[in-house]
Amino acid sequence: MPTIDAKKKLAEQWFRELRDMICGEFELLENELTQSSAPVGKFLRTPWQRPKGGKGEISMMKGRVFEKVGVNISTMDGEFSEQFRKEIPGATEDPRFWASGISLVAHMHSPKVPAVHMNTRMIVVGDAARIWFGGGGDLNPMVSVVEDTRDFHAAFRQACNTTDAAFYPVFKAWCDEYFYIPHRNEARGVGGIFYDYLGLNHLAPNLPPVSPGQFGKGGVGKEATARGMEIASNAKLDWDGCFAFTKNVGRAFLDIYPQLVRRRMFENFTAEDREHQLHKRGRYAEYNLLYDRGTRFGLMTGGNPEAILMSLPPEVKWA
Amino acid sequence: MPTIDAKKKLAEQWFRELRDMICGEFELLENELTQSSAPVGKFLRTPWQRPKGGKGEISMMKGRVFEKVGVNISTMDGEFSEQFRKEIPGATEDPRFWASGISLVAHMHSPKVPAVHMNTRMIVVGDAARIWFGGGGDLNPMVSVVEDTRDFHAAFRQACNTTDAAFYPVFKAWCDEYFYIPHRNEARGVGGIFYDYLGLNHLAPNLPPVSPGQFGKGGVGKEATARGMEIASNAKLDWDGCFAFTKNVGRAFLDIYPQLVRRRMFENFTAEDREHQLHKRGRYAEYNLLYDRGTRFGLMTGGNPEAILMSLPPEVKWA
Repeated sequence: MPTIDAKKKLAEQWFRELRDMICGEFELLENELTQSSAPVGKFLRTPWQRPKGGKGEISMMKGRVFEKVGVNISTMDGEFSEQFRKEIPGATEDPRFWASGISLVAHMHSPKVPAVHMNTRMIVVGDAARIWFGGGGDLNPMVSVVEDTRDFHAAFRQACNTTDAAFYPVFKAWCDEYFYIPHRNEARGVGGIFYDYLGLNHLAPNLPPVSPGQFGKGGVGKEATARGMEIASNAKLDWDGCFAFTKNVGRAFLDIYPQLVRRRMFENFTAEDREHQLHKRGRYAEYNLLYDRGTRFGLMTGGNPEAILMSLPPEVKWA
Repeated sequence: MPTIDAKKKLAEQWFRELRDMICGEFELLENELTQSSAPVGKFLRTPWQRPKGGKGEISMMKGRVFEKVGVNISTMDGEFSEQFRKEIPGATEDPRFWASGISLVAHMHSPKVPAVHMNTRMIVVGDAARIWFGGGGDLNPMVSVVEDTRDFHAAFRQACNTTDAAFYPVFKAWCDEYFYIPHRNEARGVGGIFYDYLGLNHLAPNLPPVSPGQFGKGGVGKEATARGMEIASNAKLDWDGCFAFTKNVGRAFLDIYPQLVRRRMFENFTAEDREHQLHKRGRYAEYNLLYDRGTRFGLMTGGNPEAILMSLPPEVKWA
């Protein structure tokens, strides 16, 4: 079993590798849409660094297929603030943390091509006392198409089943509960999977097991979240197993999403379709700014706003 | 001195009257822009009602001068949730509340015409145990013009000075501190005035004075807010005085904003100006969804999302 430093290095390397593969695939798609007169997109890479201990690279492409796609890899190193410690397993004992991950949001020119979000991450709290993985992917079509939703879910189901057949239904339900816009009484998209705290209790065998729900992420009406945390935090996976799952989730995304883009990007659309898309994106922006934990957490704790708000759509309308 | 029921009625009536005057003025502006071929805007009025006890009317206009302007009047009646009680003076003793107000946001077609926000409200907690007024107005130019900023501020300074010369500098500083976007390290606009808890201690002479800061709205780095709450909550004004001030704030807005629109709406602008405007509006949307207390409070407590999110710009871009 690799040392904690080796584990961190392996995870970081994988996130970078996955970033490179995804960007490569997306640039291929740009070249395939020959029917457009708009310039072919190429990713622009911007490295960034935060004074408090954090660095990353934003890869951004504004092309003919991808109206705006951002892929961010980052590795953060620091201490949780007093305020956040009580929300994080292990942080009251030792507030130091290390986190590395990849995060991606794609907003597409054509309203016929679904938008998408994917991210995976590894977290270490304290002196490797608590380690876990989180992530997921979810599809955001402007008008949902049964077969796209089906195939997207099938890809993640397969990624889950390779590790544990219990994962998919639980992580799917968690995703639906998480990406829900309560004030609109609407789902943000058509789902996918969402998970967090994977391996939490099994990767720290010398510590008493904890229930992530006690850290304030559960709550009334959050049954799927509670169930998801239960399954993920108690999964009997060693680090290699968690890491393999993380890779499978990334590969599932890399495999299925370009297929969906290729399937839809040649379709015609109307001005009304575009209007609908711009309004649907308004919901996406509302969700991210009002509810998304990563966005709010990042901004409130002095993260890089350019990287965090990379997820916002390029153009939006509100009625 | 009117009874509490009479006071509520007077306030509600005024907000409605002000709404009518503002809508009338704005429709005149639509008619004055003869150089446009877009249809002349007219306000559309939509009454709404919430099952939990609240009603109001949204007046919305999408015209040739005003790309989107919403004016909402509402009167809410209910009980503060357990969670919010400790944040509201008097609510732990008696959680019932009544609130009535007017709220307005205008996003303009021309990037040369500043956007604007204004609202005033009266709050009653419990059995009229605690009563106060709040509100303000702030200007959001796309490119700030010294004389517009100056004249907007002068109008509110005059409104303040009619009541108390101490108000303007304090409420101006409060406004600057409130409408600030920390993650961007930018002001949302060029300010105006902001106030809350006006008359809190003087309108409840039989109760011990309270400091609104103890209810968690102050905090480190919020010196102007703390100072503003101090001045507003201890202002030696009876209900008539507070109400007169509220009216003056509304009238100041009604007087100055149409002047600024008239001054700028005939100016030419470029496609670059428009692009800049759409990106600047992105900051406005970020602020409202991430930080604005009214927006978050309203959505989290089951308010009417259509009325609350009326403030969002009609079209926005993010880089």
